[in-house]
Parts: sequence; C-alpha cells; structure tokens
Amino acid sequence: MPGFLWCPRGRVTMSPLPSDERRCMHKLWLREISWPLFVFFSSDIEISRAQSPKAVDVLAKEIGLLTDEIEIYGQTKAKVRLSLLERLKDQPDGKYVLVAGITPTPLGEGKSTVTVGLVQALTAHLNINSFACLRQPSQGPTFGVKGGAAGGGYAQVIPMEEFNLHLTGDIHAITAANNLLAAAIDARILHENTQSDKSLYNRLVPVVNGMRGFSPIQLARLRRLGISKTDPETLTEEEISRFVRLDIDPSTITWQRVVDTNDRFLRKITVGQANTEKGFVRQAQFDIAVASEIMAILALTTSLQDMKERLGKMVVANDQKGEPVTAEDLGVTGALAVLMKDAIKPTLMQTLEGTPVFVHAGPFANIAHGNSSVLADKIALKLVGENGFVVTEAGFGADIGMEKFFNIKCRASGLVPSVVVLVATVRALKMHGGGPNVTAGAPLKKEYTEENLQLVADGCCNLQKQIQITQLFGVPVVVALNVFKTDSPAEVDLVCKIAKESGAFDAVPCNHWSAGGRGAIKLAQAVEKAANQKNSFKYLYSLELPIVEKIRIIAQKVYGAQDIELSPVAQSQVDRYTRQGFGNLPICMAKTHLSLSHQPERKGVPTGFILPISEVRASIGAGFIYPLVGTMSTMPGLPTRPCFYDIDLDPITEQVKGLF
Amino acid sequence: MPGFLWCPRGRVTMSPLPSDERRCMHKLWLREISWPLFVFFSSDIEISRAQSPKAVDVLAKEIGLLTDEIEIYGQTKAKVRLSLLERLKDQPDGKYVLVAGITPTPLGEGKSTVTVGLVQALTAHLNINSFACLRQPSQGPTFGVKGGAAGGGYAQVIPMEEFNLHLTGDIHAITAANNLLAAAIDARILHENTQSDKSLYNRLVPVVNGMRGFSPIQLARLRRLGISKTDPETLTEEEISRFVRLDIDPSTITWQRVVDTNDRFLRKITVGQANTEKGFVRQAQFDIAVASEIMAILALTTSLQDMKERLGKMVVANDQKGEPVTAEDLGVTGALAVLMKDAIKPTLMQTLEGTPVFVHAGPFANIAHGNSSVLADKIALKLVGENGFVVTEAGFGADIGMEKFFNIKCRASGLVPSVVVLVATVRALKMHGGGPNVTAGAPLKKEYTEENLQLVADGCCNLQKQIQITQLFGVPVVVALNVFKTDSPAEVDLVCKIAKESGAFDAVPCNHWSAGGRGAIKLAQAVEKAANQKNSFKYLYSLELPIVEKIRIIAQKVYGAQDIELSPVAQSQVDRYTRQGFGNLPICMAKTHLSLSHQPERKGVPTGFILPISEVRASIGAGFIYPLVGTMSTMPGLPTRPCFYDIDLDPITEQVKGLF
Repeated sequence: MPGFLWCPRGRVTMSPLPSDERRCMHKLWLREISWPLFVFFSSDIEISRAQSPKAVDVLAKEIGLLTDEIEIYGQTKAKVRLSLLERLKDQPDGKYVLVAGITPTPLGEGKSTVTVGLVQALTAHLNINSFACLRQPSQGPTFGVKGGAAGGGYAQVIPMEEFNLHLTGDIHAITAANNLLAAAIDARILHENTQSDKSLYNRLVPVVNGMRGFSPIQLARLRRLGISKTDPETLTEEEISRFVRLDIDPSTITWQRVVDTNDRFLRKITVGQANTEKGFVRQAQFDIAVASEIMAILALTTSLQDMKERLGKMVVANDQKGEPVTAEDLGVTGALAVLMKDAIKPTLMQTLEGTPVFVHAGPFANIAHGNSSVLADKIALKLVGENGFVVTEAGFGADIGMEKFFNIKCRASGLVPSVVVLVATVRALKMHGGGPNVTAGAPLKKEYTEENLQLVADGCCNLQKQIQITQLFGVPVVVALNVFKTDSPAEVDLVCKIAKESGAFDAVPCNHWSAGGRGAIKLAQAVEKAANQKNSFKYLYSLELPIVEKIRIIAQKVYGAQDIELSPVAQSQVDRYTRQGFGNLPICMAKTHLSLSHQPERKGVPTGFILPISEVRASIGAGFIYPLVGTMSTMPGLPTRPCFYDIDLDPITEQVKGLF
Repeated sequence: MPGFLWCPRGRVTMSPLPSDERRCMHKLWLREISWPLFVFFSSDIEISRAQSPKAVDVLAKEIGLLTDEIEIYGQTKAKVRLSLLERLKDQPDGKYVLVAGITPTPLGEGKSTVTVGLVQALTAHLNINSFACLRQPSQGPTFGVKGGAAGGGYAQVIPMEEFNLHLTGDIHAITAANNLLAAAIDARILHENTQSDKSLYNRLVPVVNGMRGFSPIQLARLRRLGISKTDPETLTEEEISRFVRLDIDPSTITWQRVVDTNDRFLRKITVGQANTEKGFVRQAQFDIAVASEIMAILALTTSLQDMKERLGKMVVANDQKGEPVTAEDLGVTGALAVLMKDAIKPTLMQTLEGTPVFVHAGPFANIAHGNSSVLADKIALKLVGENGFVVTEAGFGADIGMEKFFNIKCRASGLVPSVVVLVATVRALKMHGGGPNVTAGAPLKKEYTEENLQLVADGCCNLQKQIQITQLFGVPVVVALNVFKTDSPAEVDLVCKIAKESGAFDAVPCNHWSAGGRGAIKLAQAVEKAANQKNSFKYLYSLELPIVEKIRIIAQKVYGAQDIELSPVAQSQVDRYTRQGFGNLPICMAKTHLSLSHQPERKGVPTGFILPISEVRASIGAGFIYPLVGTMSTMPGLPTRPCFYDIDLDPITEQVKGLF
C-alpha cells in the first residue's frame, strides 16, 4: 500500500482515475466523473464540490427505478417509494455486508469512509452492483464537535453539504412527531386535573352539526377498555370516567422532548411554570432528536402499516395503577404516522464515484441502536440483485453498533448478513496499546505520528477482542485497516498479521480516503471471497430469557464484564416491564463507545469490571428494552469553540464553507 | 349571488366548470383539470384529493421558469431560485394586491380562501396572469385547534396535505437555526464562567497542525472591538480578555428557543438544572417556531447577502455594560445562513384550478408580522408581467396584518400596493353587532344561521373602521363578502351597500368556496378596476419619530385608542433601545387579533381605551421594535380534544385523513 498517502484534511495529489463506463450485472450504472489531473484539494467539502454529481433522476434510472418510484428533492436527492419492495418481491437478495469497528478514539476511525470506499471499489472498479446504506447525521454534532459525516477524502457521499444539512427532512419529521406526543402528554394531564368527567367527555366527544360521535381512535380505545358501545349517549358514568381519564402518573413519564441541536442546558429542566399551567410543574429533559424512539422505529420498521402500529404502541408513562399508557391512548397515532409518512422513504444519493447510496435513519449507536434502516437495506438488497452487495454500517465499536445490528436489527428484518468488515486504524490501536489521550481539537502526540510497533502490538488486543465478538455471531470477518499517511509499512503489516492470526478471514490495508474506490479494491476482493464462506449466523441470546439474563449475556460475552449490577431503580423497572409483558424484547444497551467497559478511560480489553445498570427504559414501539450503563448523557453539548465558527455561506456563489 | 351555495365543510353539489385552455398575457398557463359532474364531497381534503395537480415542472414551464431555476421537491412542490430576480430585473412589475380582513371571529373569515379564489378567477376565468403568495402554516395549530390553512372548498392550494405538513422544510430550518443560536448563548455563558481568559483563548483560537489563526468571523469581531491585529500571538492580555468575553448578562437574554408544536408546558421553564451545567440555571421559554425573529427575517429579506447580514445583526442579550450582544458576536452567523440557505427560496405550488402559488414565510400576525415573504412577492410580480396581478395576504384584521404589511413589509421591499381587498363575513359582522360568542368547536347560535339585519347593520361599524384604516394608507379598498349558505340575500346586499357608503371602491359577494374561481369573477373584475385608480400610498408614520410616538400613532389612528400607557419595564426597554441606536425602526405590535383594542371581548369599534404596553422587545435583524400589548402568549396550547384526534393515515393508499 505504500505510494498512497492518507492526508487527514490535508492537501493530496491525485492521479487520474479511469472514467470508463462499467456494465453491471443487471443494469448499467454509469460513473459520470471526470477526474481532474493532479488537483490540490484542502478539505472534504472542496473535494465534494469539485465533483459534479449526476442528476438524481439519471442515477435512479441507472439503478432500475421507475419514474413513479422516486420523489425528487432538488438535483441530487430523491426519496424512494416503498412500492418498489412489492414490485421486486420475487427478486433474490444480494449479499449483505456490515461495516463495524474496533473501539474508536473520539475522532472516529472512518467506518463511513470505508463503507463508501468499499462500494466505490465494488461498483466503479470491479463491475459489481453495490449499494451503501448510511445513517443520516445529526445536525447537533455537525455544528458542535464532530462536524459532518459523509465519509471523507475521495470516499464521500456528495454533495456533502446536502447530506449533512436538512437532507430530506427526516430528522425534522421525527422531532415534530416526538414533540407533538410530548405536548399531548402534559396537556392531557393538565386537562384531566382541571376538569370533571362530564366536562372532559363533552370536550372529547363534542356535538358537531347536532351529532355526537367517537372518532375511530376513540372507538379503538373503548374496545381496549372492554366497552363495546359506539353511541356516545349510552355510556354509563363509570364507563365515561374510564374513557376520559388516562390518569397518567407524572412521575413515571419516560417520553422526553427532543431537538436536533447540542443544547446542554436542556439536559434537565422544569416545565409548566407559566400561570396558565396552574402549578403542574415537573422536571423533564430534552434529548438529541436522533435518540427519539421514533428514530429507532424508523430504522426498524418494515412498512407503513408496521410503522403506524409501532407508533401507537409506544409507552410514554404509566397510569396511577401502574399500567402502561401509550401514544394510541392519547389519540395521536394517526397524526404521528402522518408526520412520518415521507420520512419512511429512504433517500437516494451517490458517492463521489457515482455509485448509489441510501441515507436513512440515525446515528448515536451509544444511546440508540445507531443503525441505518431495515427498509433501505431491504430495498437495496433487491436492487443490487443476487450477485450484488449491500454495505451497511453500525455505529461505533462492534461491541456497540454491531451487537445491536445482529440482536435487534436483524431480528426485525429477518435478514442474514454475509460478512462483517471490521475497521481499525493504527492510531486507535496505539491508543489501546497505552498511547497518550486522543482528544478532538488537540494536536496528536508524536506516538501517533511516528512508528511505534510496540504500541501497535499491545493495542491489537482490542482488535482481537472485537474479532472474537463478531465470531460469536457466526459471520466471517474481514479487517479493513484504514491507512493514514503517518502509518509505517511495518505497522500496517503487523496489524494485518495479528488480525489474521486472531481469526479474521482476511485483513487488508485500505487507501480509499486518498485514492477513492481504487484504494479499496483489495478490501472489495476480500469481502467478495468472504461472502462465499460458510455462514452460521446466530443471535447471541434467546428472547425468552429474563431481561436481566439477556443484559448479563451481553455484558459478559461481548463487553467482557465479570458481572452486572442493577441499581434498585433499574431492578424495579425490570420487574415492572416484565409484569407488563415486555420481558421478551431484545436489549439495546446505552453504553459509552470509548471503551469495551462502562469507563471511557479504560482502553484495550478491560477485565474484571462489574457493569453498573443505573436505569432500564423500554421502547415498546421500537421493540426493545433500553438499559443505561452508568451515566449516559442523551444530549451532547457545545464546546467553547463549536464547529460553527468555521462554517460560512458565500452569498454570491451560494457555496458552503467549513463543513467537514 | 343567490344560486351559489356556501357549505362550510358540508356536502356540495358542483356543476361542471370549463376546462378549456386560457392564453395569458405573456405565457400559456394551462388549467389541466377535469371537473367532475355533480360530485359530492364532504371535506376540504376530499376536494383537494379529487383534483390531480399537474406536475410542478409542468407548472414551472407554463409560468416561464427555466429548468435550472427550480428545485423540485416531490411531484407537486418546487423551490424557486433567487437567480430569477436577476434574469427578470428589467421586466416591469405587475399589480400588487393585498388581502386583509375585518376583525375576525376565532374561526377566521376566509382570507386565504379569498386569495385563492381571486387568483383562480383572474387567471382561470379572466385570462389574466396572476400569482397568489401565501404564508406557510405552522404545524402547531394544524394539529392543535385551527387545522390546516390551504384555503377551503373549491378555492384551495393543492395537495393540501403537502401544504399543511412539512412543505419544503422552511419552518424546520428556522427552528434549527433559532435553537442553534439559543444553545450557543447558554453554552457560551457557561464556558466564560468556568474558564480563565487564557483557557478561553486557547480553546477559541486553537493550534491546528502547528498553526494558530483566527477564523474570519473572529477577525470581524476583532475589528468591531477596534483591534486591528491578525496574529493571535500578538494580542495583549487586555485585548485577549475583551476578545474572549462576551460577558452576557443572563437577565437580559431575549433570544428564546422555539418548537413548531403547541406545547403550553414550555411557556415558562427553568433550564440548566443538570449537574453538568454547574448551577447556571435560569428561567427561559419556548415560543412557537413561526414567532422566531428568523421567520421575520425570512419574510423581509431581499437577498442571501441581506439575510446573512440580518442574521448576524440579531441582538440576543446585553452584556454587563448594557451593550447589545449579537449572533455575529457568538460566531454563528455563517452557520445560521447555511441552515437557511434553502429556506430563502419560495416554494411553488398550485391552486385547485392549476394557477401558480408561492408559499413562503409565516403566519401569526398577532405575535409576529404575519406576512408572506418579500422575495416571493417580488419574484411573482416579475413573473406575472405588467398587466398581471400578485395577490398576497396579511394575517388577521387590517389593524394587525395590513398595518404591518404597509409600515414594515412595504418599507423593506419598496413595493407599492395597488389595491386592498378587505374580507368580511356576515357571521363576523353579526358578532360585532352584538351577536353571541363564537367559539371554535361549539355549534353556532341561531343568530348566525337565521337572517338578522339589525345585527348585521350594527356590526358594520367594524367594517367601516377597517375601511377607514385602509384609507389612512391611501390605497383603494374593495370589500369581498365571503358568502355562507346561511346568509340571506338581504344581509348580503346590506353589507355591500354599507361598505360602499363607507368609502370602499366596491363591495362584492364571493362564492369561490362552493364555485371555485367562477365564484370570484366579480371580485376579480372589481379588483382589476380598482387597480387602475389613482394610488396615493403613504406610510402611517415617519421612522424618525421616537419609538413611543410611533406606538401612539398606531394605537390612536389604527386601533382607536385614547392613548397608550407603558409599563416601567417597557419604558426602560424603550430608553435602552433608543440609547443603543435602534430608535429609528418601524413598530411591530403584538396585540390580540380578536378586537381592535387589547381586550379580545370588546367587539365592534371599541373607544376610550388606554392601550397598555407591557413590554417592548427589539428584533434588530428583522428590523423592527416589537411592543407587547397586555399579555400576549407566544406559545399556543393543545385543547382537551386537539385536531389530531381526527387525523389519520391509510397505510395502504398512503392517504391522509382528517386534515382540514
């Protein structure tokens, strides 16, 4: 791999890439790029801008979509209709590849970049149909610490500013739906507390044009209450009381408001302090929008009908008797589905080399499940055809995103992955081997810029452990070493050697950042071979096990914990969910991504720790139990110098600057 | 007008409308509709759905837009690029018509419907180019009390669910920008309070790749501080301290967070209660998103450059010395402009009869200025050509939206309106004449459904007063009586007679709700005649007058107040803004829309009242001073039975139900 240079955000000398047409399996997917000779670029956004994306309707035609199956948003984005799944239902699925990673530094190790580089290599260089399925970035980190998330260098989704900004509005739709439900909860409590049964009933079931009738969602509630009447005039006083009072216990509300902004001052707030709310104050919080259960539903749902059902089932609180209160009880299911009706359609974009990408659902694999959507993967698997590849991505280390991918997402989809690509960097391995702290914004210490084989060798324990975790699921693993210009050939060789000794099917250095798809050809070839291996995919635990047992299996087998310890609050929550009939759901751990353990500072492979479970929540609509490991913030903050200091818009050219 | 029936939300018998093509002045604008014979519809959304809109690219071509001047969003919406203004800069403007109203009931009197009916009549029936410029509805009321806002019956914007839901994401972009700025304020206060000058400086101007440099927005701040240095190493300690400390006085923060949801529990909140915020709690609030100053800027801006400058100038608080702190001081101007870069482009849609509509900027003329955008109006005026008409709309009664339209929006745009259409209903006039209360959700009393000439005659005082207000601005006024099926011919005749006696150029009954554009032909003819009248447009007050004097002129001449009375807080705010050099801005009153006075229950023409000014705020970016009359809520609430009870999505057909 020497000869290719990794230049993080630096200038890079490009040699021309071929611009020929490539005939893919069942469709002609054109790369309409004219690579500039020896161009000097200084940032991801400049590289992105230097390449003109083809019109999205052209791309859609190339990959076999019909005109009425897409909804164009501007020149470079289109939503894809779910009707496609019905049309292609008899088409065999392609191969399903998951990109996961070792435990990362706070800078990230380039999973999105590998994902993009891999599909560029497969389709633009090896003539194999492929699709990348990526997650929509949150605007919080884009303007906060992390910056954009479109991949990087010559392995990007373009235009990167479209990818990183509002996209097609999915996260905004989630925010709107989430907050409508939150407003409905507090308003309902207020109205119930300040009105008699009769007054509530008169308002909930008003006389309109001389007639009084229940709305369909009210009839559904009556049926759940065991009341089979349909004429509002015939309910007894007792039935009216049961119908009009959800009787929410405010101390049990688990539904939080969200914003897609890093607003740390909303982590804990008191609401309802205006006089108009008559003293019904309570403590609450805002989470980052992508942590909303509605985002999890968007990622896991399989159809509009399924999404609507899941939205209705979301439990927001308990009533005074300890029974769950749902969005359906609040009468808001239909409105939530209406707000989400377009968000359910994946967004089509393209890589820098003109290959197709779906962007759908959200990030934050630490506090959410952090996977892109089942629907995007399913549609892409049909589009690429039997010999094609769909490359999707799970957030953070394999212990976090991949574990959730297998145990939660694959359960929801029924899909079986063919290969796991495990992304590693020399930088992160050195950190695991005992290198100094890596901090965003601060310059890297010399341990990271000079050869140090001992640090690399010591740090490979983390890689080895993440390979073992992957093997628990019976899927072949290919290690992709994301090469930086400061990595020495000996360091690169050492990592690949250890990876193969540790059970990886193959281990390949990659240079897609500086060379585009051409720099990931060997990775693509390894993935193709691995996909033909025997696959004995299995889940890690049976859903029938008690909640605590499932948490323990993840903690011990995946994280390497000695045991788990539930706080009394967590234990009582587990008991309650079990009693309410939610015990058979999979587990979505909320744990730091910076260590296999719950302690971010413990690098390498920590052992002997007891994993503390401070709280256990339930996302019934999404369909998982959600334990919080230690203290997990669900709202990032803005640092002293947020990314926005460098972001600007040229009012004449309309170009965005400083997004990366 | 007998023969046409107004059926609010009821079933209506339609006779066929002509479906021929119509050749307009400079372009062929096709109406591609096939009107069904004698169809029975039961709601606005069913009427909307029964008509297939033409593809928006077809519409764009019909009205003379070039392919690269539009960005398509789905089949029926497109954003229009501002480059159009440059291309058409030598084209003469069309006639500019404002639709305003009398003091409304809480149900609204149909201004949007008149606006749509009027353009349908002009273009589809009289062969005159026209454009409607409407405001994007807030999703708060759509799911709360009011329901959708696309017009109604056979005078609608279609598809109405697209109009009423996320549209092209402008309000979401405003929310994102607004809340990024809010988060930046609190985070900055925290960081300044917990770090030394040196530490702040090291973080704000970090070493990157061995180099240290100011970002452009930091250099701009240095210049404002009178520091001409550009090398970070050369600043003195005193200069560093001035540079790093905005020194915001938390008690003076006027920038609020927003959501586009009716969430009453956010009217007054305490933020910063998590341990991570180290005790820096403060009282704050969320406003409805459309009340954001950024919405006001969107409506008043004339270019991307102008918008960026306005965003930077927004004052969010004072520092401890009483000097204004701006978005620019926080380093966030560029990021806000980036978030708003697409929102600045008006959205093209169509009426039920296929004529073009721009939807841009926001509602809430009571707590904001409540006008659609200057840019949409300007582009539309070029597109319709010299003999064409642009019909725009100002919220609520003429005392509210129209006064702001003339004194604020026309000042920002430099445009001169040709005609005001003043919308009245027999229902609202009866209320002003002493009829019983009109409440949303409750059935109308018989006074409103049976002929009562005395109530109508008594209530016409409000119509007369609103005509007089319009005449203050020197623009001819045509009264449009929005006819309901319960209005008697005698009632209709009486209103028109009184309107003409009161100085209206003409007064015309309209039946566009039941008959589409055909029902507004006489209105269109009257408007066309009025547009050729002598026009002596003038502003109501000179900007040079002191703030209090400008408020008094509006209160006395427009509202009919005896005088105004400022609270001590309001007086000190006026003094501060005057001292800070903001005294020469126009005034944007925040006043109830339900009465000419500050007391919603006082109907007709209240006199002898003293208008209380409780607070005075400043929107420096938008460019106005913003007095609050009495207590004005900037966040609506959800009632016991919000609209969402009736809203649903059919998961098979993907059709939205219950939006109206």
